Amino acid sequence: MKIGLIGLGVMGYRIGANLAKEGKLDGVYNRSEEKSIKFEKEFGVKAFKSIDEIVESSDVIITMLSDDNAVSTTIEKVIPRSKGKTIVDMSTISPKLSIALSRKIQENGGFMLDAPVIGTSIMVEQKKLVVMVGGIKEKFDDIKPILESTASTVIYMGKNGSGLYAKLVNNLLLGAYVVAIGEAFNFGVTAGLEKQQVEEVLTKLSSARSPTTDLKVPKLVSQDYSTQFATKHMRKDLEIIQGEATSKSIITPMSSLALQFYRIAESLGLSEDDFCSVYEVFRRFSKKA
Amino acid sequence: MKIGLIGLGVMGYRIGANLAKEGKLDGVYNRSEEKSIKFEKEFGVKAFKSIDEIVESSDVIITMLSDDNAVSTTIEKVIPRSKGKTIVDMSTISPKLSIALSRKIQENGGFMLDAPVIGTSIMVEQKKLVVMVGGIKEKFDDIKPILESTASTVIYMGKNGSGLYAKLVNNLLLGAYVVAIGEAFNFGVTAGLEKQQVEEVLTKLSSARSPTTDLKVPKLVSQDYSTQFATKHMRKDLEIIQGEATSKSIITPMSSLALQFYRIAESLGLSEDDFCSVYEVFRRFSKKA
Amino acid sequence: MKIGLIGLGVMGYRIGANLAKEGKLDGVYNRSEEKSIKFEKEFGVKAFKSIDEIVESSDVIITMLSDDNAVSTTIEKVIPRSKGKTIVDMSTISPKLSIALSRKIQENGGFMLDAPVIGTSIMVEQKKLVVMVGGIKEKFDDIKPILESTASTVIYMGKNGSGLYAKLVNNLLLGAYVVAIGEAFNFGVTAGLEKQQVEEVLTKLSSARSPTTDLKVPKLVSQDYSTQFATKHMRKDLEIIQGEATSKSIITPMSSLALQFYRIAESLGLSEDDFCSVYEVFRRFSKKA
Amino acid sequence: MKIGLIGLGVMGYRIGANLAKEGKLDGVYNRSEEKSIKFEKEFGVKAFKSIDEIVESSDVIITMLSDDNAVSTTIEKVIPRSKGKTIVDMSTISPKLSIALSRKIQENGGFMLDAPVIGTSIMVEQKKLVVMVGGIKEKFDDIKPILESTASTVIYMGKNGSGLYAKLVNNLLLGAYVVAIGEAFNFGVTAGLEKQQVEEVLTKLSSARSPTTDLKVPKLVSQDYSTQFATKHMRKDLEIIQGEATSKSIITPMSSLALQFYRIAESLGLSEDDFCSVYEVFRRFSKKA
Repeated sequence: MKIGLIGLGVMGYRIGANLAKEGKLDGVYNRSEEKSIKFEKEFGVKAFKSIDEIVESSDVIITMLSDDNAVSTTIEKVIPRSKGKTIVDMSTISPKLSIALSRKIQENGGFMLDAPVIGTSIMVEQKKLVVMVGGIKEKFDDIKPILESTASTVIYMGKNGSGLYAKLVNNLLLGAYVVAIGEAFNFGVTAGLEKQQVEEVLTKLSSARSPTTDLKVPKLVSQDYSTQFATKHMRKDLEIIQGEATSKSIITPMSSLALQFYRIAESLGLSEDDFCSVYEVFRRFSKKA
Repeated sequence: MKIGLIGLGVMGYRIGANLAKEGKLDGVYNRSEEKSIKFEKEFGVKAFKSIDEIVESSDVIITMLSDDNAVSTTIEKVIPRSKGKTIVDMSTISPKLSIALSRKIQENGGFMLDAPVIGTSIMVEQKKLVVMVGGIKEKFDDIKPILESTASTVIYMGKNGSGLYAKLVNNLLLGAYVVAIGEAFNFGVTAGLEKQQVEEVLTKLSSARSPTTDLKVPKLVSQDYSTQFATKHMRKDLEIIQGEATSKSIITPMSSLALQFYRIAESLGLSEDDFCSVYEVFRRFSKKA
Repeated sequence: MKIGLIGLGVMGYRIGANLAKEGKLDGVYNRSEEKSIKFEKEFGVKAFKSIDEIVESSDVIITMLSDDNAVSTTIEKVIPRSKGKTIVDMSTISPKLSIALSRKIQENGGFMLDAPVIGTSIMVEQKKLVVMVGGIKEKFDDIKPILESTASTVIYMGKNGSGLYAKLVNNLLLGAYVVAIGEAFNFGVTAGLEKQQVEEVLTKLSSARSPTTDLKVPKLVSQDYSTQFATKHMRKDLEIIQGEATSKSIITPMSSLALQFYRIAESLGLSEDDFCSVYEVFRRFSKKA
Repeated sequence: MKIGLIGLGVMGYRIGANLAKEGKLDGVYNRSEEKSIKFEKEFGVKAFKSIDEIVESSDVIITMLSDDNAVSTTIEKVIPRSKGKTIVDMSTISPKLSIALSRKIQENGGFMLDAPVIGTSIMVEQKKLVVMVGGIKEKFDDIKPILESTASTVIYMGKNGSGLYAKLVNNLLLGAYVVAIGEAFNFGVTAGLEKQQVEEVLTKLSSARSPTTDLKVPKLVSQDYSTQFATKHMRKDLEIIQGEATSKSIITPMSSLALQFYRIAESLGLSEDDFCSVYEVFRRFSKKA
């Protein structure tokens, strides 16, 4: 079974590295060639010059791309050559789009799985990703061992789109939660508590403490917004959620309000910063000038 | 040092039990006498018939009452006899009120500490309460060993009101978080995922997983709203937060929106149910009739 | 100049009637033939059996359809025969879609104008519609006299999409405003005022009184939700607004919150009722059960 | 019948002037003496040096003060001398407080009416105020002619508190509406419409047009935030509404969200500017930096 990877961004590059180290990767492709050549040099895995070629040479094609547009453009090129092949799309995109693309691939005799991840680039390096997969169960069974080279958990969620819906459940909660953390932190500090005390409440004493409070609250204390997951990405995921809420008439008051605050954060220049920088909206705009 | 306890509700009774078992309680008082007599029979601790008497006989008076009104009425009766005594108020009330009452007590030569708790009645039984204390540090040191009979953590937060502000930081986050959990759970189920899969995402895979998701998400799966912390209490705490936000001009968009949904839940008859029943608002009102 | 009309729904039928009475309509088409035959009988205007035929026979084609899907499907059929013709789309749809369709038509040598309306079916009958138009100014000048047969105001807004953006500005405000009217009315009544007093405040005394309060508040007083503009249509328009807000990174907190309440109203079975029935959410869910 | 006026702020001074010109004012009192002396010089109406004196000398005492605190402090001083007198409080304060104060006055044999106004200082000068009155009907009948010297409409709303509830109904709607106007205006401009076109939609074409859009939208066009009604006052009124919503368990999602945006506006230094300056939050924070 030949395996190819399309997309060598922050996440894709590291995922590829994990596969390559276990001898489970046979080719890579990236829109800007620079990265694929670098990858080839570092891991001895062939850098393909076109999507056509990598699809031709692979049985399984993993894609890890930035958004609906990138996935759509790429998969449209994959479709004509997809017969008998399995596409594993690890990008976080609209489930509706993913389902539509998977249908087209199936019409061409291929298979597609949606396999978005929970986890940061550091978690990839530690092979601690969580991958949630939607699509045909047999195909999931086939590719599970591949993904286990880069993830601690690879879990089947159901038919096409299910992996993405599971991911959106996570990011809906996470997106609203982190705005609420910013609000709570600001409330405590403005009320006169020491930052470290608020930190202790949120990370140690509260029943709402989580891996996220462990990771983010110390960043609020020091106003360190170095990026683990960028504001613009959380904003994008919440926008996907709003789109799905529209399709399915689901009420989403908390996450649609949270979305507004990520947009405000982006207007403050925090688009590329960590999404916990949404706290700045609370910090800057709670006191009378 | 003689210790008295005023307020034998769900929490107060259990806290009293813990103290009594360690020989650290000398008297109890409850507005409806029935409970204090029951307590006296069960633990051999004197049931006082009036606030005057229990205050007269005690050096430390612990109060655990339902709301601003109850605390205000009770403490006003305590004030005239408070000289040299320490009042430890474990109720969750408005910090503003608590600070005002503590001033009056200090003018009478007594001391007051605000000492609200994080934890449910079950956690009292397991002596796993968290108590966050505001007031004079020396007085905190004096009463800390008493509270350690019923709590795993007793922590000093600063001047009067600080314990309550710390509690409100917790409940601001918790209140918004649990509405967001309801929203995320409903989103996943409506999108077609199995309840158990959404549960796994929220309690195992998500970085926003917490003791609260462990406790509440299984309740959403089974629509079991047996009370650990009632909707009406969370609603009340969020209302206190809104009051403080008004005093201090703090923006609180997420928690004030969450408050509306707890109110809607109460209108559905879920006032006495567990506050995670706010999920019902999402479950019932997301689909076209 | 031959004029054809596609779409004989509640609005389209009445618009067509106005044109026909002034001798400005030469043909109609409707997906379900029944209505076009009825129209032909009533006004002596030819009922075409296909989109191809009506387009072939007309210089100006007016479309008045329900949503993005209907417009997209219809215009795709118009495009191949659109050379030299002017399409006037009066539907309220996504500006993004409208702009994309107008480009395709222009590539085929035709022209498209977006010309959505403010006004109800009764206002069509009274020829009091407001039509806001986007597209090439010369083409606007050409078709303005036609639209003046059914509208009191026909106004040029700028390049393609501008008519729709103007419409969305209106519906963003209107959608949020009517939820706020429901909230204010419920606040007053729950606080103990007579319904008629609240009505007087909102329709006579308030500086926020408007043609909308004149129209809707009496309906709230009598809980008469007979449809002037359906909840589902306002919900759809607010969803288009959210989509545009996403494309352009615009914050829309009030209208996205309002949207949630229209969705809740629809879950109560009020989808086809007048959108002021959103008041029911406030009326039913403000009091403890 | 001797009439006294307490409170010579922007509104009170002009109301007093109207009464004085019709010979219906016998004395004034202001906390800072400067203004009462100026008033005395201008209108030949006696400037009293204390609340005691003006109450002693008057049968009807009109108060026009800034907030709960000012009214509470003032009325407490009035109470002991209120026997047989009628207090007409024109301030916008918490109905709960007003009702409590009116009870105390009645226990002392006096009467109190709540008589808040809709209208700006310019409208006072034009005698176009709207006054909504709560309290005993006979007393309303007695003082109505006095208020008609400064108002075009003086209307009876019911028992004590009713005038204030009517005022809050108005400001709930107005507060939410003006934030929505800011959102709509920003949406249109960001989408590429000319400011003047958006103005035309909102003030001429929309069924949500109102005296408020006439007054405020031109201000948004020119970013002229000269004060007609200050942001801080609208914020205060929305906070009173939140307090009442808490007392009565009323859901207020739109107005409590609007409140957050007025707070953000205040943090931008717009506290004393006109409340339509809340538009700045949308203008400044909708675009990526």
